[in-house]
Amino acid sequence: MTTSSTRVPQQERSRATQARLLEATVDCLVEHGWSGTTTTVVAARAGVSRGAQLHHYPTKAALVTAAVRHLAERRADELRTEAEALPAGPQRLDRVVDLLGVAFTGPLFVAALELWVAARTDRELREALVPLEATVGREMHRLTVSLLGVDERRPGVREAVQATLDLLRGLGVANLLSDDSARRTALLTTWKRQLSALLTP
Amino acid sequence: MTTSSTRVPQQERSRATQARLLEATVDCLVEHGWSGTTTTVVAARAGVSRGAQLHHYPTKAALVTAAVRHLAERRADELRTEAEALPAGPQRLDRVVDLLGVAFTGPLFVAALELWVAARTDRELREALVPLEATVGREMHRLTVSLLGVDERRPGVREAVQATLDLLRGLGVANLLSDDSARRTALLTTWKRQLSALLTP
Repeated sequence: MTTSSTRVPQQERSRATQARLLEATVDCLVEHGWSGTTTTVVAARAGVSRGAQLHHYPTKAALVTAAVRHLAERRADELRTEAEALPAGPQRLDRVVDLLGVAFTGPLFVAALELWVAARTDRELREALVPLEATVGREMHRLTVSLLGVDERRPGVREAVQATLDLLRGLGVANLLSDDSARRTALLTTWKRQLSALLTP
Repeated sequence: MTTSSTRVPQQERSRATQARLLEATVDCLVEHGWSGTTTTVVAARAGVSRGAQLHHYPTKAALVTAAVRHLAERRADELRTEAEALPAGPQRLDRVVDLLGVAFTGPLFVAALELWVAARTDRELREALVPLEATVGREMHRLTVSLLGVDERRPGVREAVQATLDLLRGLGVANLLSDDSARRTALLTTWKRQLSALLTP
């Protein structure tokens, strides 16, 4: 009894410490970029000792990769919850594209882009990120198929979902330095009509 | 006579020095990324003295901004030349999209993305880049309209060209860490058919 009841709170404390570190990492990437994100700054921001941080994430590459994985999972859960509240019928597609448009201009996108670009010229980070890129890409694709409620076995559906995600990634980059929302909204209005035609059996 | 004949070679030497510096800057951004690109490394790579470099480009922000502007103009000229060799008729659209696909995965795209991401958290660079982003975006749009040989006054043409460029930007990012060419080629094959339908009166 004693062993089990002390182990559970320890595990919970560990998980809470990890979550604080990962969220501080993403905040740091958004605020200061890759080069301004140091493990020291993240530990201070999370209120976690350097020893505890190194215990959980021994390198900067391990820390930032875990942070993007963590936030990607959390954002996917949030998107699923938000999507549950959406109406069925033709308006659903429009609202799903709107939700994705918000995701691709938000903190996760910005933090991930910082890492993707830094990883191009940083071998350790690249080796950690390439498998994560594949997982996140696949999960994002599956999630979009599920939110849209479409059947990927139908011809053209897979390509239409892919094009939507690539388009949104491009729009996310266009929004980095200036507010591109007016142009993005207009462009996505047109895209929704095209996507609807591509997805309608 | 004497004044004018010495002035011309001086101007030519100046232009040649500038071109060497700007091309070394882009090479450096591609090879080492934003944080690995220092004005000292660029001067050494270009074989230009620090004094001459500072005379032409007093800050790192001035140097990299001029480099991206220079390369964007050169790539636009190259695209125009390559497009002159393209056939007229329905195949032209496919070939133009292929040329743009190459441009959005090449050194200019990679160097520009390094700057765009760094500028998000670097005020001096951002102030230099925001006007350049607007110019390059506008020029790229005009060039694409001209290469496709379409009339932007027709409804839907402007949006279709914009979506093509945003899609290509997203595909460029997807190609940063791993070779995405097989997926990109398949996706662009589908996109060419859609674009053709959107552009055909």
